[in-house]
Amino acid sequence: MTSEQFRRAGHDLIDWIAEYLEHAEDYPVLSPVAPGQVRQSVEQPLPARGEAWQAMWDDFIAHVIPGITHWQSPNFFAYFPANGSYPAILGELLSAGLGVNGMLWSSSPAVTELETFVLDWLVDLLDLPAHFRGSGVIQDTASSSSLCALLCGREQALEWQGNDIGLGAVGQRLTIYTSDQAHSSIEKAAVIAGIGRQNVRLVRSDETGAMIPAHLSELIVADRAAGCLPSFVSATMGTTSSLAMDPLAAIGRITSSERIWFHVDGAMAGTALACPEFRRIADGLESADSFCVNPHKWMLTNFDLDAFFVRDPHRLTRTLSILPEYLRAAQSDEVINYRDWHIPLGRRFRALKLWFVVRSFGIEGIRTHIREHVRLATVFERWIADDPRFELVSPRSLNLVCFRLKAGDDPSERLLHALNRSGRMHLTHTKLGGRYALRLCIGQPRTREEHVRSAWALIRETAGQVLGEES
Amino acid sequence: MTSEQFRRAGHDLIDWIAEYLEHAEDYPVLSPVAPGQVRQSVEQPLPARGEAWQAMWDDFIAHVIPGITHWQSPNFFAYFPANGSYPAILGELLSAGLGVNGMLWSSSPAVTELETFVLDWLVDLLDLPAHFRGSGVIQDTASSSSLCALLCGREQALEWQGNDIGLGAVGQRLTIYTSDQAHSSIEKAAVIAGIGRQNVRLVRSDETGAMIPAHLSELIVADRAAGCLPSFVSATMGTTSSLAMDPLAAIGRITSSERIWFHVDGAMAGTALACPEFRRIADGLESADSFCVNPHKWMLTNFDLDAFFVRDPHRLTRTLSILPEYLRAAQSDEVINYRDWHIPLGRRFRALKLWFVVRSFGIEGIRTHIREHVRLATVFERWIADDPRFELVSPRSLNLVCFRLKAGDDPSERLLHALNRSGRMHLTHTKLGGRYALRLCIGQPRTREEHVRSAWALIRETAGQVLGEES
Repeated sequence: MTSEQFRRAGHDLIDWIAEYLEHAEDYPVLSPVAPGQVRQSVEQPLPARGEAWQAMWDDFIAHVIPGITHWQSPNFFAYFPANGSYPAILGELLSAGLGVNGMLWSSSPAVTELETFVLDWLVDLLDLPAHFRGSGVIQDTASSSSLCALLCGREQALEWQGNDIGLGAVGQRLTIYTSDQAHSSIEKAAVIAGIGRQNVRLVRSDETGAMIPAHLSELIVADRAAGCLPSFVSATMGTTSSLAMDPLAAIGRITSSERIWFHVDGAMAGTALACPEFRRIADGLESADSFCVNPHKWMLTNFDLDAFFVRDPHRLTRTLSILPEYLRAAQSDEVINYRDWHIPLGRRFRALKLWFVVRSFGIEGIRTHIREHVRLATVFERWIADDPRFELVSPRSLNLVCFRLKAGDDPSERLLHALNRSGRMHLTHTKLGGRYALRLCIGQPRTREEHVRSAWALIRETAGQVLGEES
Repeated sequence: MTSEQFRRAGHDLIDWIAEYLEHAEDYPVLSPVAPGQVRQSVEQPLPARGEAWQAMWDDFIAHVIPGITHWQSPNFFAYFPANGSYPAILGELLSAGLGVNGMLWSSSPAVTELETFVLDWLVDLLDLPAHFRGSGVIQDTASSSSLCALLCGREQALEWQGNDIGLGAVGQRLTIYTSDQAHSSIEKAAVIAGIGRQNVRLVRSDETGAMIPAHLSELIVADRAAGCLPSFVSATMGTTSSLAMDPLAAIGRITSSERIWFHVDGAMAGTALACPEFRRIADGLESADSFCVNPHKWMLTNFDLDAFFVRDPHRLTRTLSILPEYLRAAQSDEVINYRDWHIPLGRRFRALKLWFVVRSFGIEGIRTHIREHVRLATVFERWIADDPRFELVSPRSLNLVCFRLKAGDDPSERLLHALNRSGRMHLTHTKLGGRYALRLCIGQPRTREEHVRSAWALIRETAGQVLGEES
């Protein structure tokens, strides 16, 4: 592809993306393809010679697009959002064009310095504790941040010897603690780090889904009595099922007195801290050793970009630093080398897109975006409460409403599948207190009240069919 | 930013990237900024209101560009390359525009199916063993692939119980094996997985930097005798220091008879397998349980994209699968859910860029690209051999030449720093057999013979100055 061909294809692609995002609602939200269908349609022998862009583009439109579930549709209410914005897309494009690897400060100083700077902006924007200033790093996802935090906790509990001798030589079970509503990545991190599933203690949660601190204390005491080594507590600021908020202050008092690493996973809800009226969910965050939030969920920054903050970065680098000769650089003592702050060695220039987003929207733009989603969720919650066939399964939290048909699990599940099959909206489900629940999460920048209203009309109509009423 | 503003800024940005890549050699290769300089120049208070694109763009040019080390410059000979191409950039842009998360098959079936398909193309292109067909996954970097492989080895050695009971309950040291020339990510993975640095056995390498299999056998026998549990062997197809090739067949015979997981790290050199004349380096790869190669190094696909292949994916998913209710999907048994194949949960649509690259270049285009770099390295090697002031520190391997001044370590190091300070080329160093060596790695698509010739002229001239000769 020549420079001239790239320019033409690039301009067309920019225009296509603008068109796509403006009209994403015209596509069926959940891809309707059958397993194997996309592969079958793109299958061709490895090409001996290069092909023209147009051939690839035609195949993309014909064969790939049908296999896309449209996360950017205003009718996407599933999981948590992975929203984006024009400035973020430009940041990603620019990063791809520069093609630099910021593994070391010297391998592109701007990658490191802009990253530390823009994460300090997040400390301001989200009113995070001051001890997170200057100690942020961009990770791919909250899963990776939680793993890094858990490794710090593991090593702190072992007085930083586990790195060296290995857990097999410790001869003691390490235990970690998170609520029964925590994200699966915590258990995954425990498996990766050699802690083991059996040593993941699931602290009971209350009826809202929030961790019960008294149970955390009980578990720690029992584990110590049994000869285990409690090493890590992960609290959730906004659980995946119901956006429940663990009581950070009470948990922090326990971790402080027990001297256990305290991580807070604010992957989704952390963005809400941009609005002063929602900051009560961060009460107690000042006792956290580490914290993560995903601008790639609700802060208009396309996937992937997780921001991880650690009180004492030396704890992290002590755990992850390996320094071979070929990576020795002159400035090692006076600069940050982010390669020691996460699992991979290499790293993209991801700070660019967050820099563009924060500057393009400003504090006010980001707050308006969050507040509108919360407002729409409040409206939807009222509709649910007012319809006698439906019930809320947990209190609305921020932009998430969990609801079901009073008629039970089975009709609720049939309702979900019928809605998703319609192509007109996409929802996912969970179980809360053993009961099947539909989750409606509002997080797309283009979701307006009319979309939520249409969704509600479709839900009511489909519920009528499911319940065997005449619609 | 409106749709119209995005189009205008996007077109300009596409044009800028084309200009940048065509003229990357005009910039000083290694950024000359001092620590803190970029941060100081971008520092401003968190903006209350949104700013216009032009303001950000002006700051990018004025403050970020000076802090960039230009990996896409034809005069970048440092580390290993992170090369890219126009079709790859378009793929990254398209992925950012679609903004989908392929964590589950159903969360965008095309993400999963195109990925499995295009990795099967790599099996064809690189003539990989047939047991890697249908079992590839894209990871961010080789560090993450190696960690996943090590976890499989750990669990296999523990008969898949470590996941559950944790290493602390095993009460036995697990050991892993790699050469003293292996990448730092192997030791990092051992630390993360709870194996411990002390249990990383560094197998001696020969004078070319290749692992000595007899020493591997000795270490395993000694560890078993001492009550340790050998669990993982990682061989390198192209070491970071000198692109040395571990003897895979001999190593594979040992891992097979010892029943130890055998991983092969072909991050850099794996791309050379596209050319039949270089395939001897893969002799024995058929005994590997897992293999990784980074198209983001030498296959024209911008960072990040590592391709990881595992003989039996069930081993991987058995290690990494955690299935909470909110991720249960109808098709779980008949499709791949890649979230269980790596550390993170969420995932970008990275297959697009590799699909575009392979189709745009075709087999011939990729081979031409590799062969030209190897040819240029051969030319450079001859120049080194013909100049009495210089010596080769190891045999040239593929596109990498390691050399030094015969005058010793100190003049060689001064030569390196002087060359990097010039801004006209960028090299990095290593130590081989205890001796300081400069590494010249040729991997940029725009590096032509004239660039290597100019680099050599500059090296000779600078060497003259360093050696105190009149130039």
